[in-house]
Amino acid sequence: MKQYRVLIDANDEKGLVHKVSTIFFNYNLNILSNSEFVDKEKNKFFMRSVVDGEIDLEELKKTLVEALPKNTVINVIEPKKKNIIIMATKEMHALGDILIRHESGELEANILAVISNYDNLENLVTKFGITYKTISHENLDREIHEEKIIEFIDQFKNVDYIVLAKYMRILTPKFVKTYEDKIINIHHSFLPAFIGANPYKQAFERGVKIIGATSHFVNNNLDEGPIIAQEIINIDHSYSWKDMQRKGKDVEKVVLSRALKLALEDRIFVYENKTVIF
Amino acid sequence: MKQYRVLIDANDEKGLVHKVSTIFFNYNLNILSNSEFVDKEKNKFFMRSVVDGEIDLEELKKTLVEALPKNTVINVIEPKKKNIIIMATKEMHALGDILIRHESGELEANILAVISNYDNLENLVTKFGITYKTISHENLDREIHEEKIIEFIDQFKNVDYIVLAKYMRILTPKFVKTYEDKIINIHHSFLPAFIGANPYKQAFERGVKIIGATSHFVNNNLDEGPIIAQEIINIDHSYSWKDMQRKGKDVEKVVLSRALKLALEDRIFVYENKTVIF
Amino acid sequence: MKQYRVLIDANDEKGLVHKVSTIFFNYNLNILSNSEFVDKEKNKFFMRSVVDGEIDLEELKKTLVEALPKNTVINVIEPKKKNIIIMATKEMHALGDILIRHESGELEANILAVISNYDNLENLVTKFGITYKTISHENLDREIHEEKIIEFIDQFKNVDYIVLAKYMRILTPKFVKTYEDKIINIHHSFLPAFIGANPYKQAFERGVKIIGATSHFVNNNLDEGPIIAQEIINIDHSYSWKDMQRKGKDVEKVVLSRALKLALEDRIFVYENKTVIF
Amino acid sequence: MKQYRVLIDANDEKGLVHKVSTIFFNYNLNILSNSEFVDKEKNKFFMRSVVDGEIDLEELKKTLVEALPKNTVINVIEPKKKNIIIMATKEMHALGDILIRHESGELEANILAVISNYDNLENLVTKFGITYKTISHENLDREIHEEKIIEFIDQFKNVDYIVLAKYMRILTPKFVKTYEDKIINIHHSFLPAFIGANPYKQAFERGVKIIGATSHFVNNNLDEGPIIAQEIINIDHSYSWKDMQRKGKDVEKVVLSRALKLALEDRIFVYENKTVIF
Repeated sequence: MKQYRVLIDANDEKGLVHKVSTIFFNYNLNILSNSEFVDKEKNKFFMRSVVDGEIDLEELKKTLVEALPKNTVINVIEPKKKNIIIMATKEMHALGDILIRHESGELEANILAVISNYDNLENLVTKFGITYKTISHENLDREIHEEKIIEFIDQFKNVDYIVLAKYMRILTPKFVKTYEDKIINIHHSFLPAFIGANPYKQAFERGVKIIGATSHFVNNNLDEGPIIAQEIINIDHSYSWKDMQRKGKDVEKVVLSRALKLALEDRIFVYENKTVIF
Repeated sequence: MKQYRVLIDANDEKGLVHKVSTIFFNYNLNILSNSEFVDKEKNKFFMRSVVDGEIDLEELKKTLVEALPKNTVINVIEPKKKNIIIMATKEMHALGDILIRHESGELEANILAVISNYDNLENLVTKFGITYKTISHENLDREIHEEKIIEFIDQFKNVDYIVLAKYMRILTPKFVKTYEDKIINIHHSFLPAFIGANPYKQAFERGVKIIGATSHFVNNNLDEGPIIAQEIINIDHSYSWKDMQRKGKDVEKVVLSRALKLALEDRIFVYENKTVIF
Repeated sequence: MKQYRVLIDANDEKGLVHKVSTIFFNYNLNILSNSEFVDKEKNKFFMRSVVDGEIDLEELKKTLVEALPKNTVINVIEPKKKNIIIMATKEMHALGDILIRHESGELEANILAVISNYDNLENLVTKFGITYKTISHENLDREIHEEKIIEFIDQFKNVDYIVLAKYMRILTPKFVKTYEDKIINIHHSFLPAFIGANPYKQAFERGVKIIGATSHFVNNNLDEGPIIAQEIINIDHSYSWKDMQRKGKDVEKVVLSRALKLALEDRIFVYENKTVIF
Repeated sequence: MKQYRVLIDANDEKGLVHKVSTIFFNYNLNILSNSEFVDKEKNKFFMRSVVDGEIDLEELKKTLVEALPKNTVINVIEPKKKNIIIMATKEMHALGDILIRHESGELEANILAVISNYDNLENLVTKFGITYKTISHENLDREIHEEKIIEFIDQFKNVDYIVLAKYMRILTPKFVKTYEDKIINIHHSFLPAFIGANPYKQAFERGVKIIGATSHFVNNNLDEGPIIAQEIINIDHSYSWKDMQRKGKDVEKVVLSRALKLALEDRIFVYENKTVIF
């Protein structure tokens, strides 16, 4: 018996569920879980099914492609570990959280390497037998620096996701384009509040009673990519911005790891700069 | 065009989604939303679809009954206001919240009457042109008191739900049986913590850092019926139990109204003393 | 025995707590609760004490003024109901929540009147025996409209707070100046996200996973006054902006009522466009 | 300049704040922060001040002891790293979270050793250069097993806290007595709900919509010690108890680390089986 995740992203029309469920039925597949969402306004249909049964992945995919309307995006995925690269700068909490999850076996991922513009985290990462690559940005044009990163990444085949675990540099459109829809970032505010540098300081200045963190796919507009997960914590007047920063770490790491898990389990659709999450 | 809510509660087997979606397709129905849940362990299948199209309710129901396995519970419901009776004692917040929602038109319900064992709330309720019935329990056996309540309720036909908006008396098994699966209660703790009398005092004695409220269907075991909704608020050592009580009201009323809304929108399935909520 | 709330807003210097507690000790006052906050960066000191004992308010205040540095703001307040005016437009939930709290006696306030630019809420408000004043803005310059409101308000003496319970018009600087630090607003987003019109629509467009509400004092910059209270609720892709609007009401009303309660209990200090809340 | 944390636990009486603040003033100490709480019902007074200035710890303590009533518990503490022992069983998340915080330098603690009844976590712990001691319980009476643990612990002097990072065995009264008020546990439910074994299974059976975690000091009644911190996460019908267990880990580790931080910063008073936390 094989288990597949079937992801369908279509223009909405009558009969889509019928067509898909008929195929599942005809192939004698067992539906383990099934989620659908219709955006009436945009006329979009999304579906994620987990099925098991005795069928070849390619055959199932081919049958779905034939049955469903043209322009439908169909993915049939066999659950297995995905390959990720982590990029960080100096902070340990978000990276450390992923390393521990990886070590405990809970992460459906292989960590191919950790890249940083500093060597501060090398000692931690290499403890876990994971490749650490320092690529300093000092005295380098942003493009040159990124080219070195891309060159390093490109030695690996099949990189599924690049996880920015508090990588504190802005990426160029070229870099973002190279790994389109593959870069997951954690921003330390409840976006769209406090875009850009030092959001905790911005939050402190504004006197908010809530701070938060947002994980999102990276696009070319700083902190404006599709949001995957957000969470907040309550604060009060007694918090300096450094207190916010300290306390915020707990929510940053949890939100990033949650977003990564959603990606690894193929639970995210992206459209209209938003996410549908099953 | 008519809109229906289709609720299916079945023993799980292959092809259920296929069968239902085929019927929707054949009748040219539009699926506005669709939720499914399979409990593999208990072999149970639940589905709630909202569809619209040109078909008679009875015909749709009949077709579903013929297609689906025996013992499947099938409900096809045309959205309309449900009839509710509210029972309260002396506290105003939960009742008041429902009255304001009703007045604003946001509640998919007609309030047939408010029953209380005291007359304290009469002035409030009658402001809204709603029948208020005081049925004092003083000097009455519990059974006799409840008989008077049942007698009052039974003058109304088609009572869909009885909402206990801080009704502070324990109901007898007979009363519960009379309105089985129709009684929605709010208990002022995050159940199963602090069952029974004065949960805020219990919470205070225990020194918890969180208090909460739980809305549930009433069964014969005190505070042990199927849970519909729960929410909490953070507290600290500075809260007396009266402070907890005051602050708790905000979450009690919100949780009760949320549970009521779920019931009015036919979003709740009950099984194994639990709820499935779509 | 009289109870007083003592509020001190001073430039920080050594010995402030000593001086105040010595005065309390010498007058044989009992400290029921005591909160302090020092902002080291801005060199500010805030203190709120609740005391009881046998002393005249004016004498206590005079003694504090003499003992504490010049420029210290000292308030000695005898707890009693404050006078509030509510302004609303058409929505019932936030206003209704305050009316029910008022009716139940939990609000430390007299509602002098409700003012709206429409008459939709008149029926609700007058049920509670509260004056309702419709002051339409139609065909009026903003200034003229507000002058009529000010004229109405000014017939009342001692208006402590003006509560904007979803009053959907922007106030002019003149109006804000007239009731400086007295106007409490509820904005339907977790500020500073989604300033201005229709924040739920903005939230929908951005694809956030959290929506919220913010209560704040009103100043001349739209939605930029000192924040008193904020709360959020989790949403997902299935929410239309109208769903957000519906669900958001629950948090709007709770946050506004919480902020109002803090104000009525003299728990808020304002400085640097922020609040210190004890 | 030295910084001290001054902790006072007294029977309440007039003038306590006055006496303490006078001493601070006379010694020319700067109050960096100050928190007080009075439990009127139990007639208890708690105070935590952080001060800095030019004074010897012993002298400050002596002066406070002389000025304050007998039976007052007075602690003057110079902030420095505390010594902790961690006990775990097989799960990695709570332990791993503490290890990463320790590695990053954010924890005000030295980890003396990690003790487990299994060797599963040895590989992780020794990566960080921390002593790992497997003390198997197999074929041993509970008392004998614990004696071996106590023997191991007692080789260290000045153990400030023993942190049970998912140590899955019940401790005997003798063990608890040996390290009274020093043992911090994480229980995987929002206590007092779901005491004892497998709380997630209990939560699943009960059909709750919220699960949580509670960190508490250990006393002789299972899961009934003074609560330090609690947090919850929302779940729904689709969660199996294994899903709850997985998701619960995120809140377990955060709550345990938060409680540990409070202990390390001397922010916790214990009385009446509760905590006062500043």
